Amino acid sequence: MKKAVVLLSGGLDSATALYAASREGYQLTALSFFYGQKHRRELDFARALALGLGIQHFTGEVPMPWKGSALLDASMAVPQNRSHAEMGTGIPATYVPARNSVFLALAASCAEATGAGHIFIGANVLDYSGYPDCRPEYFRAFEEMLRKGTKAGAEGIALKIEAPLLQLTKKEIILLANRLGVPLEKTWSCYQGGAQPCGACDSCLLRAKGFEEAGLSDPLINYAASPKR
Amino acid sequence: MKKAVVLLSGGLDSATALYAASREGYQLTALSFFYGQKHRRELDFARALALGLGIQHFTGEVPMPWKGSALLDASMAVPQNRSHAEMGTGIPATYVPARNSVFLALAASCAEATGAGHIFIGANVLDYSGYPDCRPEYFRAFEEMLRKGTKAGAEGIALKIEAPLLQLTKKEIILLANRLGVPLEKTWSCYQGGAQPCGACDSCLLRAKGFEEAGLSDPLINYAASPKR
Repeated sequence: MKKAVVLLSGGLDSATALYAASREGYQLTALSFFYGQKHRRELDFARALALGLGIQHFTGEVPMPWKGSALLDASMAVPQNRSHAEMGTGIPATYVPARNSVFLALAASCAEATGAGHIFIGANVLDYSGYPDCRPEYFRAFEEMLRKGTKAGAEGIALKIEAPLLQLTKKEIILLANRLGVPLEKTWSCYQGGAQPCGACDSCLLRAKGFEEAGLSDPLINYAASPKR
Repeated sequence: MKKAVVLLSGGLDSATALYAASREGYQLTALSFFYGQKHRRELDFARALALGLGIQHFTGEVPMPWKGSALLDASMAVPQNRSHAEMGTGIPATYVPARNSVFLALAASCAEATGAGHIFIGANVLDYSGYPDCRPEYFRAFEEMLRKGTKAGAEGIALKIEAPLLQLTKKEIILLANRLGVPLEKTWSCYQGGAQPCGACDSCLLRAKGFEEAGLSDPLINYAASPKR
């Protein structure tokens, strides 16, 4: 059975990438990391998602005490109520220095150790191209680096980075998630850690726009508000 | 003042790379990681080395629960008493899957967050070329990946990986360390975690051979044996 490692933040995109990988028949190991972000809510959802599929799941803490991002530094504000045009210009304050490289390197380590040949990541560029570590050319360069610097690479096994959402809009991701049966009420996109999504950070705004364009309502809103949670 | 990040394991090589970077006048931040290796002795030495130079030092734990290396897995033996010829064939059981990629990615994160343009690593290939993640072509591919996937790269700042020991033999590294004033009694090379170096793992054997060829005695041996420690 072919094996893959999935980077699972607990957000909408990584949950959809997880289900896409599962649908393709991979034996999966999911990885979730706490790296100093402002809340751990998405990790609870990541755990629930992995449990729901009955797959192996590693969670771990990654040290990034140097911060350098609005997601990590309490003194840096998470941008709010930005227009789509504003989001499209430059690299946002929520960029975490080299985060995807750290996560992909850990995924590569897990893949080598477990004999997996594929790494799934929920990155996408269409709706929000501000993050340099979500670009196709970056993933190709990462694969090339792994070919040069791993035992797998030396033995001719090319670890492949699979980003099935890369060229999808948020609307298309939500429609795909819906088709794949992703429990969207168990995905957390908000950069803040409130009891409810803040509704104003870039991630909340893009999610809301995606649901609207997909003609669906976001089940997280009621789920998060439920007193039974 | 130009800034650099140094990967400091607490071994002979990384200590020498640290002192080489210091001599070049960089303002330094050192990083040391516990990633499940069989002992924490080298981290004590890393702390002492950073303290000795009065530089910023971050230590952290990196989750690698999937193991896949004799350095991490208690059920895998660390090879002992191998000849130099045996060491030169294939990738050893002490290879840790994608370890240098994880460490370099964390160093890149720190470099971006602190405004450093250089990352120092004590890798060398001459005396022991078994590790794929110590090869020059790997470091070049890593730099290329960082150019594609970091904010620094997008802004035209090429993070540079400096491996000043890359083409030195162990003898030459020890002579350089001696010239630079590295406190060699505070460097730990042994893969095991005994009170004294085991003297039989590849790392101990290469260190002993290097000191012998350099015509020096290893100050660690008496230091580690001292009841005052």
